[in-house]
Amino acid sequence: MESRPSGSKSPVGRGKKVRDAVLAATRRELREAGYAALSVENVARRAGVHKTTVYRRWNDRESLIVDAVSEEIGEDIPIPDTGALESDLRSLARAFVRWATSDTGRAVLATLLSDAVRIPEIAEANSRMFQDRLRRARPVVERAAERGEIPPGTVPGEVIRMLVAPLYLRLLVTGEPVDEPVADRAASVAWRAAAAGWLNG
Amino acid sequence: MESRPSGSKSPVGRGKKVRDAVLAATRRELREAGYAALSVENVARRAGVHKTTVYRRWNDRESLIVDAVSEEIGEDIPIPDTGALESDLRSLARAFVRWATSDTGRAVLATLLSDAVRIPEIAEANSRMFQDRLRRARPVVERAAERGEIPPGTVPGEVIRMLVAPLYLRLLVTGEPVDEPVADRAASVAWRAAAAGWLNG
Repeated sequence: MESRPSGSKSPVGRGKKVRDAVLAATRRELREAGYAALSVENVARRAGVHKTTVYRRWNDRESLIVDAVSEEIGEDIPIPDTGALESDLRSLARAFVRWATSDTGRAVLATLLSDAVRIPEIAEANSRMFQDRLRRARPVVERAAERGEIPPGTVPGEVIRMLVAPLYLRLLVTGEPVDEPVADRAASVAWRAAAAGWLNG
Repeated sequence: MESRPSGSKSPVGRGKKVRDAVLAATRRELREAGYAALSVENVARRAGVHKTTVYRRWNDRESLIVDAVSEEIGEDIPIPDTGALESDLRSLARAFVRWATSDTGRAVLATLLSDAVRIPEIAEANSRMFQDRLRRARPVVERAAERGEIPPGTVPGEVIRMLVAPLYLRLLVTGEPVDEPVADRAASVAWRAAAAGWLNG
């Protein structure tokens, strides 16, 4: 939507500047105060804008958090296009592992996932972020189907779920380390399952 | 170790009775007070025993919690022996789904998994419970290898991880429902990956 280069003095450029400032303030607030204590008031104060400016762009606190975290994850885990599904999946899994083990990733996992079982709004925010990631990663699988690497009916979401499930299991349940070999193994299994036609819905 | 029938008046029988009472008290305390507030003092009071009786059997709070929850999970998710790996895995996955969506399972997931990212002792307890479950489920995979259903080098833990990873992903990250079809799909994929020789370390 807002495609002008940042730093522009046009209204659109100013709009992007406000948006960036609010999202950055949300991330700082999330890290320092945590999910439960985060308020639109505090975010607005940090960003140096009025509360109504925030509410003009975001319906509620949750939408703001989803946007703030999604944007960051989107930058840290870019969608690859290496020309082959296995290396695309490997690139995704490695970037996810780097993110999840970084200070930022740890903070997001701790803040957002830890209370998801207890607090419905957090579960809702996680779910929306996950769907957003699935949507963005879809071309990776679609391009592989176009290249004939995997059957045409392969469900993109199932491939990405299969890729990240073993990584989340280690991060959230078993506490086992996640590293590059773990990422590569996950990519290899997800790729082979897709190629074998097991993930077509 | 304590193999006499319960209700026996022998010291061993009394020992089992005390053990059962303490573990049941731990589970009630965990559900009502939560992980952080659970104390050996309160558990002992609930069970009607002295604190030192608890410490004679369990080194610390975490060991007590691991035993209490593991015992319950062990009862709710029995290890099957249907004669075929796919139906064994299906039975495990269905029992896990029933447990995870029951009041008990929800409470355990909420209490133990929700703070695992934040509190190292909880992460440690989860990890020990998961390892305990892996150990118990190992015969399912070993018997399949003996029957020639899967390659001899198949790593039991990898099969069980593959089975439960998509279920935990839904429960803890995406918030998507887990039900019998989801369990059966997970079992089918884990079984096929094992049969294809992908899970041998």
